[in-house]
Amino acid sequence: MICTAVIATSLDGFIARLDGGLDWLSSVEAEGQDYGFAAFMKTVDALVMGRKTFEIVRDFPEWPYGEKTVAVLTQDPLTLLQPLPKPVIVLPPDPEAVIAHFADQGAKHLYIDGGQTIRGFLACGHLNRLIISRIPILLGQGIPLFGSLPADIRLQHTETVSFPSGLVQSTYEVLTQPDVEL
Amino acid sequence: MICTAVIATSLDGFIARLDGGLDWLSSVEAEGQDYGFAAFMKTVDALVMGRKTFEIVRDFPEWPYGEKTVAVLTQDPLTLLQPLPKPVIVLPPDPEAVIAHFADQGAKHLYIDGGQTIRGFLACGHLNRLIISRIPILLGQGIPLFGSLPADIRLQHTETVSFPSGLVQSTYEVLTQPDVEL
Repeated sequence: MICTAVIATSLDGFIARLDGGLDWLSSVEAEGQDYGFAAFMKTVDALVMGRKTFEIVRDFPEWPYGEKTVAVLTQDPLTLLQPLPKPVIVLPPDPEAVIAHFADQGAKHLYIDGGQTIRGFLACGHLNRLIISRIPILLGQGIPLFGSLPADIRLQHTETVSFPSGLVQSTYEVLTQPDVEL
Repeated sequence: MICTAVIATSLDGFIARLDGGLDWLSSVEAEGQDYGFAAFMKTVDALVMGRKTFEIVRDFPEWPYGEKTVAVLTQDPLTLLQPLPKPVIVLPPDPEAVIAHFADQGAKHLYIDGGQTIRGFLACGHLNRLIISRIPILLGQGIPLFGSLPADIRLQHTETVSFPSGLVQSTYEVLTQPDVEL
């Protein structure tokens, strides 16, 4: 199973304002430019995200994931707004269990979304690839993408593409995992 | 006066480990590859850095700045190890005063170095350009490059170059300044 995180951050590493606000992403919105999202989605069997990310995505004007299964990780499914969109399932916030579930379904590639979920997969050695899009803005404060780690994680840079909007998208393979005992 | 910050960070935005350690930069050291540093230095009239950065640079095997003037910003010059290298001067940690000093000398381009000094110049609207080199490693904790800001700062991406070592170097012009009253 390959687990890929795809996420946008400010240049100072925030994925949202403290109140969850994503207004600053509008500076890179451009007609007909999805920064590779549709092509990436074609390679993905299912999506994995936390409750907070799900509740933001759920309020988008259009559900962005088509018929792909979306696993929302939460210990308490009752906290989720009902009814759930059709392809949404609930799983416990345990990367091992998530991977086992999707392996049983024959999935080969998971899209890992949301800060907490990405950090969780990273911390237990289950994130394989990171595609990070830097937006040309400093927010000064917000919700960070990365958090503390028990040890360094080395990455291998695969490619970087920059766009006229100023978005710079870099792809990394995760080389070392902090929890070598897993 | 143009003020340019040139700095390397981990992918999670740290410029040093909590103890100041820079060992993780060795992953991108490559014979004959200075990532544009010598060419950049030729455009610079003088350097500006804080006491902590100076004390790290002072211990390098070789003084990296030739005969260029290096301004060390500190309120208390007596805290600096003596004797100072020949081209080093001490100025108060006030970007306005630093710029006035070098303008009097006919300088046109200052290299702003060190996290605290870069943040200080950014916060009062005196940083014009940022050249940031991302090292392909997550440290999990350390000394961050960026800090809180009174308002968003918008940047214009000029170019990004990636290198075989995995270092990705992006150049930004600072478009908006948080303290519009200055």
